[in-house]
Amino acid sequence: MITLYTWTTPNGRKVPIMLEELGWPYEVRPVNLGKNEQFAPDFLKISPNNKIPAIVDHDVDGGPLSIFESGAILTYLAEKSGRFLAPSGPERFRAMEWLHWQIGSLGPMLGQLGYFAKRAEEKTPAAIARFTEEGERLLGVVERQLAQSPYLAGNAYSIADIAAYPWMLAATTFLKEPLAEALADKPATERWLQEVGERPAVKKGMQVPQV
Amino acid sequence: MITLYTWTTPNGRKVPIMLEELGWPYEVRPVNLGKNEQFAPDFLKISPNNKIPAIVDHDVDGGPLSIFESGAILTYLAEKSGRFLAPSGPERFRAMEWLHWQIGSLGPMLGQLGYFAKRAEEKTPAAIARFTEEGERLLGVVERQLAQSPYLAGNAYSIADIAAYPWMLAATTFLKEPLAEALADKPATERWLQEVGERPAVKKGMQVPQV
Ligand SMILES: N[C@@H](CCC(=O)N[C@@H](CS)C(=O)NCC(=O)O)C(=O)O
Ligand SMILES: N[C@@H](CCC(=O)N[C@@H](CS)C(=O)NCC(=O)O)C(=O)O
Repeated sequence: MITLYTWTTPNGRKVPIMLEELGWPYEVRPVNLGKNEQFAPDFLKISPNNKIPAIVDHDVDGGPLSIFESGAILTYLAEKSGRFLAPSGPERFRAMEWLHWQIGSLGPMLGQLGYFAKRAEEKTPAAIARFTEEGERLLGVVERQLAQSPYLAGNAYSIADIAAYPWMLAATTFLKEPLAEALADKPATERWLQEVGERPAVKKGMQVPQV
Repeated sequence: MITLYTWTTPNGRKVPIMLEELGWPYEVRPVNLGKNEQFAPDFLKISPNNKIPAIVDHDVDGGPLSIFESGAILTYLAEKSGRFLAPSGPERFRAMEWLHWQIGSLGPMLGQLGYFAKRAEEKTPAAIARFTEEGERLLGVVERQLAQSPYLAGNAYSIADIAAYPWMLAATTFLKEPLAEALADKPATERWLQEVGERPAVKKGMQVPQV
């Protein structure tokens, strides 16, 4: 059994999507970021960077294994299951490239855009402009990639798509206002969003946690 | 033979450090970011997100393999060599956690701090404050981790240390002014910086590219 610590945010949804794709049982422990539960000492033992998601896998030789960082968790689950990440060869590293791209660029840059354009009480035009521009650039990178191949890492749906989907959806919803113009006329992205969004595991994972 | 596309920045130094640790031959192609060479069409074919570092490994069955994103490159080189990343088990995922933490937090947040506090012509106090605070928090996370174990991922030097070192060094040099106070009284971090910095491969890698 896997225990999943998560919340209702893009990073929080990647892992339940993966677990639903695998059809593995898991129990959900909501970590309410609004109540600063990510700073609770017991949670910091599992996730020393005070962020969700994190998991504890109880079915591991030698005792339970905890993992934080969604990219590490997705890689762990892919390697344990043998699914959504090739074991070797070019396909493996195409998926790793786009996984790291999501972790290092798409996530943090849209996250900062969300903060400055939406959540911050005081508006800072220079920061909004910087992260809007970066968001627009990243959406262009995705569109060019998806115009060349059905999925981010090529012909197969992979952990790179699972990592990117909740953030790409956030770009079209929560971040629609600054990013709407950049999203218009992106047919490959639209096709991918629709196809990935219709997967039953994605639909279920996007509802976790129920709060 | 591996061709390394890189520049004189923290992300650019991780891969030459790894290649020096392995003692593998490589040829360096400097991509001058000051001249926007990262947008050259030939480079975009290898690195569609227009960022360094990227590699092309010419010794691969089925033809040359290009990889972008430093985290994916370090994982590739670790898996190809069997070094600096355990092939399975808890040690493997400890290293992956801290690798992804560097890619998703330490790098982008210190990168934004560098932009707003140092490189931007117009100063934006709200953004400087946000990224200074985040940098301070991250330096606290590192110190707590290194007080518990010799290296980021535990007892063994790994690709997580290789990824973090150039950024931690930037925190003490380029970003000294906003971060100096947070760096004072961090004995575990100081010990790690000194020990990692004295490795011959790290010394050599930090000099690449020569321009
Ligand atoms: N790179 C991390 C990012 C995780 C992250 O940013 N989580 C946010 C929610 S989306 C969080 O827990 N924030 C709480 C905090 O920073 O205090 C990952 O992919 O797991
Ligand atoms: N997550 C990426 C970040 C790479 C990155 O930010 N590279 C910077 C230099 S440190 C760059 O190439 N910037 C040029 C640009 O964005 O146009 C990685 O770790 O490889």
